[in-house]
Amino acid sequence: MAEPKENVLMEKITSLCKRRGFIFQSSEIYGGIQGFWDYGPLGAELKRNVKDAWWTTMTRLRDDVVGLEATIIMAPQIWRASGHVDTFSDPMCDCLLTGKRFRADQVEPQSGIVYHYLGALGSASGAPVSPATNTFEGGFAPTMIEGWHSKNSQISLDGLTSAGIVQEIMLIWRSGAAAPLDQSVEHAMQWAEAVWQHLSRVQFSILLPAGKPPESARKIAKEFYAKRGLMSPLLLGERTEKVENSQRFNPENGAQLTPPVPFNLMFKTYVGPTATEADVAYLRPETAQAIFAQFKNVHETSRQKVPFGIAQMGKAFRNEVTPRNFTFRSREFEQMELEFFIKPDEAVEAISGAVAAPAAKGHPGEPQSNWGWQLWHQYWVEERIKFYGDIGISRDTLEEYWQKPEELAHYARACVDLLFKFPFGTQELEGIAARSDFDLSQHEKHSGKTMGVFDEDLRTAWGKLAPEKHAELSKRYYDNRLKYMLKTGVNQAQAEREAKEDADGLAKGQYIPHVIEPSAGTDRLILALLANAFSEVTTTDDKGKSETRVILKFHPRIAPVKVGVFPLLKNKPELVAKAKEVYQALRGQMNAYYDEAGAIGRRYARQDEAGTPFCVTIDFDTLGEKPELNLKDTVTLRHRDDGRQERLAISELLPWLLARVR
Amino acid sequence: MAEPKENVLMEKITSLCKRRGFIFQSSEIYGGIQGFWDYGPLGAELKRNVKDAWWTTMTRLRDDVVGLEATIIMAPQIWRASGHVDTFSDPMCDCLLTGKRFRADQVEPQSGIVYHYLGALGSASGAPVSPATNTFEGGFAPTMIEGWHSKNSQISLDGLTSAGIVQEIMLIWRSGAAAPLDQSVEHAMQWAEAVWQHLSRVQFSILLPAGKPPESARKIAKEFYAKRGLMSPLLLGERTEKVENSQRFNPENGAQLTPPVPFNLMFKTYVGPTATEADVAYLRPETAQAIFAQFKNVHETSRQKVPFGIAQMGKAFRNEVTPRNFTFRSREFEQMELEFFIKPDEAVEAISGAVAAPAAKGHPGEPQSNWGWQLWHQYWVEERIKFYGDIGISRDTLEEYWQKPEELAHYARACVDLLFKFPFGTQELEGIAARSDFDLSQHEKHSGKTMGVFDEDLRTAWGKLAPEKHAELSKRYYDNRLKYMLKTGVNQAQAEREAKEDADGLAKGQYIPHVIEPSAGTDRLILALLANAFSEVTTTDDKGKSETRVILKFHPRIAPVKVGVFPLLKNKPELVAKAKEVYQALRGQMNAYYDEAGAIGRRYARQDEAGTPFCVTIDFDTLGEKPELNLKDTVTLRHRDDGRQERLAISELLPWLLARVR
Repeated sequence: MAEPKENVLMEKITSLCKRRGFIFQSSEIYGGIQGFWDYGPLGAELKRNVKDAWWTTMTRLRDDVVGLEATIIMAPQIWRASGHVDTFSDPMCDCLLTGKRFRADQVEPQSGIVYHYLGALGSASGAPVSPATNTFEGGFAPTMIEGWHSKNSQISLDGLTSAGIVQEIMLIWRSGAAAPLDQSVEHAMQWAEAVWQHLSRVQFSILLPAGKPPESARKIAKEFYAKRGLMSPLLLGERTEKVENSQRFNPENGAQLTPPVPFNLMFKTYVGPTATEADVAYLRPETAQAIFAQFKNVHETSRQKVPFGIAQMGKAFRNEVTPRNFTFRSREFEQMELEFFIKPDEAVEAISGAVAAPAAKGHPGEPQSNWGWQLWHQYWVEERIKFYGDIGISRDTLEEYWQKPEELAHYARACVDLLFKFPFGTQELEGIAARSDFDLSQHEKHSGKTMGVFDEDLRTAWGKLAPEKHAELSKRYYDNRLKYMLKTGVNQAQAEREAKEDADGLAKGQYIPHVIEPSAGTDRLILALLANAFSEVTTTDDKGKSETRVILKFHPRIAPVKVGVFPLLKNKPELVAKAKEVYQALRGQMNAYYDEAGAIGRRYARQDEAGTPFCVTIDFDTLGEKPELNLKDTVTLRHRDDGRQERLAISELLPWLLARVR
Repeated sequence: MAEPKENVLMEKITSLCKRRGFIFQSSEIYGGIQGFWDYGPLGAELKRNVKDAWWTTMTRLRDDVVGLEATIIMAPQIWRASGHVDTFSDPMCDCLLTGKRFRADQVEPQSGIVYHYLGALGSASGAPVSPATNTFEGGFAPTMIEGWHSKNSQISLDGLTSAGIVQEIMLIWRSGAAAPLDQSVEHAMQWAEAVWQHLSRVQFSILLPAGKPPESARKIAKEFYAKRGLMSPLLLGERTEKVENSQRFNPENGAQLTPPVPFNLMFKTYVGPTATEADVAYLRPETAQAIFAQFKNVHETSRQKVPFGIAQMGKAFRNEVTPRNFTFRSREFEQMELEFFIKPDEAVEAISGAVAAPAAKGHPGEPQSNWGWQLWHQYWVEERIKFYGDIGISRDTLEEYWQKPEELAHYARACVDLLFKFPFGTQELEGIAARSDFDLSQHEKHSGKTMGVFDEDLRTAWGKLAPEKHAELSKRYYDNRLKYMLKTGVNQAQAEREAKEDADGLAKGQYIPHVIEPSAGTDRLILALLANAFSEVTTTDDKGKSETRVILKFHPRIAPVKVGVFPLLKNKPELVAKAKEVYQALRGQMNAYYDEAGAIGRRYARQDEAGTPFCVTIDFDTLGEKPELNLKDTVTLRHRDDGRQERLAISELLPWLLARVR
């Protein structure tokens, strides 16, 4: 759980985001909509810069990755193939008292005494139960019914009206098939028929912290049965039990929760003018699947050969039960995903003689043709860490978490989470998974379209291999394919047949590529960048008055505004004219901000808070007022992080800045 | 309707888009999903360039516009305020025979003879009706029931089973309250009960082209009643009518269509774990409303004063009934919208003494403080035309359509559509609307939050005006506000009260800004750019063999790849090394493509087809093989559009290209 100190930081960040127009609550004027956040002017620029940096790094600066921009709504079959329709769900439970819904696995564990009730009897007329004797007027104790029913528990009374209960009991009693009540049943029944509404045998439990009086539990239980239509409910069968760390009770009121039920996190809609089951479509819960679905089209049109990657950025949607931690877990978010397709290890071995051994820790260097999935995976982990370093999140602020074998999805061979220490805890920024050939295989199976590629190098190499090598590689490939088939529910005979076909295909140069997937969340990265950049300085003036200011120490490459341009004084036309001239020259090349309002210190502070790395001030020296100083056409360049100032010629300004902000 | 010749062009464009990876059908391997399109590697770059150009032009290069990036799912109240929940719909009708759905206003008009039927009688056992006498065996004619019913039409028989009909008629007949049948009813009824399923009194009509035999109509009508569960239906009450240009019949089979019903075009989903009416949310059908909803937040945090604008790009969704024309009208698309907020004319007049007169045709120049909505509107029309010119769509390929007063929405003061001649017809690329203060007023009304701004200049100016001027401006402002209130359903008394308050506010410097909205569709712009760039050249070689090649003449600024870099021969290491060196130097600054495969002519052709404006070839002269030519470290630069080649020093290459591609 978050420590108070850290919450203070989150509050400061949230408040700064709103105050400076980085992030607003979506639909704020209408009270907001939970889990949705808008980027204001500075936030939109920040996000653009981050996306540009990712896209440039991942596609433009690489020969082996191309881009894709697919739609958010795709054919629903895609989500059946990927498994999202069946398994992309959270376990949900409801408070039996208030109906409030919880993520079952995120309920705060509770300890204490549980009060169980078997049911309750309710009065229709609201005739009060005598507290002293626990009987109705007329001498008939509802506990008699309970007593009778406990001896005849094979008979369900739940849901019956009073008349129904009476008939049921009378019938059975008269037939002699059940134990009678202890006193004149007929009299009591007739009376009861007039007074009772019904008997509820729905069980209900409440957890109280140790030491709280039982009356608290009874009050809640009565509320529960009253909500089910029983007036002045009389509780039946109270019994207590001690529990530790139970997640089965609402932490807010102690009431019992329903058993967990899976709740699919995909937003559902209907495409087309009719809204039948055939028209159901989903908002994509991840961008990755579009890449797999378009793999063949891209492969065929982009002149790329395996190994190569397809990159995509875009919105994804998850109907999170409890969106939280500001923009970290929201319902609409953006992803930046790469699917990097590689040859199966058997193909690499056939071509290169052997698969290169995984490297010691660190970057394995430039890709080599003898790399198997492990080296490619290591490579991408390191490339991604390098990316974060390039935008200001240094390696030492990231944690690498290698998932344990038991944590991996059945098809995954490895997965590394890159974690960042957010103010609310250390959480995932990106996952880099080695997903085997699972994804393309699933789409081949569900679409009936081949996802395999033909690899000329493999076919040539295969022809030159010794028969024992053939057998060995075929066997390994066969085993892997068989394992996939069996895991996805194909029966043994068919799985063996298909795995055999696949192994035969390998010998002809055909295979379904494996994939390494570095998958980053844009919005949580923005949040990480904000948290990473956030710092405060407290200054005390001559009069002892101290002031705390925020500095956002963004890397210049992602800072929303690159440079602030100020005339020293706004009422000197020469200064203003010169400042505007400088501003015009810079803004064509980068996001610049012109400001002439207020003292120069205020203007610096405003830019510090926006994360602008550099400010340029045009002063009288710029105009050459003191020729002896030889400062004509120079400006004061001020650094955000340490307030350091230097003098720079206007002619040098643009290249100086470009070298730092791009 | 599209002319055949133009369809050929569309087919060529579509096919090129798929072949070169500009645009693929979404979810193609699953048979696609209608109205959704993915951008492949080249398309994604093209789209990025277009969006970058828009964003740079609209925000970075302007001091008076800031950006926003809001969510796709917003609070549903926004769409009530905007009117989308109530009125954003198409009239839809269904074919009564096949259930096929049509846009009622887009049904192809038909002329001919309509065959009307009052209903039909159906046999349960399938016992055939004798064609000669139109009676069942047993002598009972179904037309008797019809005859009886026509005299007793107050009695509804529709939906009753045969038993029900029999009981109903018998009861009424015995009571003497209705006319009897013409022969032994009891006998007939008993027989009928065994044979009939039910009587359908659902009316149905079919339109046949003049000259077609009535049997065609009867066949369709029988099919219709048979689908409703009547076996061997016997048609009742046939009657014919001549019609001209009717849209009430399915053009494919002549069957009657249901009356038009409004069909809301917003995609609907549910947010949160329960899916109740309270959880309904919509995918935004336009990006504009988010700007209005966040107007106050942006205004308060961005240090902007009216006039200023907020720009946003992003996805929008419309559940189009008939998506068509490739990506022109799709269900998921992207918009680029600016809302430019201006002072109401009354405020401008108060401050500047008079509102400047609208300009003669053309660009009115730099914005002035005395501009009213008309000049601002003209200004944005011209700015937008200029934008299109800057990315290769010249003014003379655009058509300006000024909407006529009767075409305008009630709140709009003017709207100009910029049209482009697509291969399938001249269609809207962008609309530039003067929307008065309608949008912000609606959100003020629905959210209860003030959308007004305080204008210091206005308050100061107001204090110096003569009382007659006060009265005049107040009156005009009052009239406009009153008109808005009344149009949106506020009752007269309240409208007058509120308009009075607003007019009083104006005198204190307060008003709700008016807005000019240039709204562009990104995907249709991409399509326009493709159509605009598409050209073919046919060349004939020495042997008389001719070849037709495609050249995409994109403006360099938006071309997906800016420059191709080739070594003349791939088997000369010095050429390859030098070419890679040039390539590396360029790609950091722009999207470059290295290619060494095939003859140089093939490589040029490949880039022509991708729309790459420049190609650079490294040849032996580059290496300085002939020192006397003095061509060392120069390259051949080849122009896409005319194949022209020139010699350029490598050192000049980057600035030369940058000046053209940015």
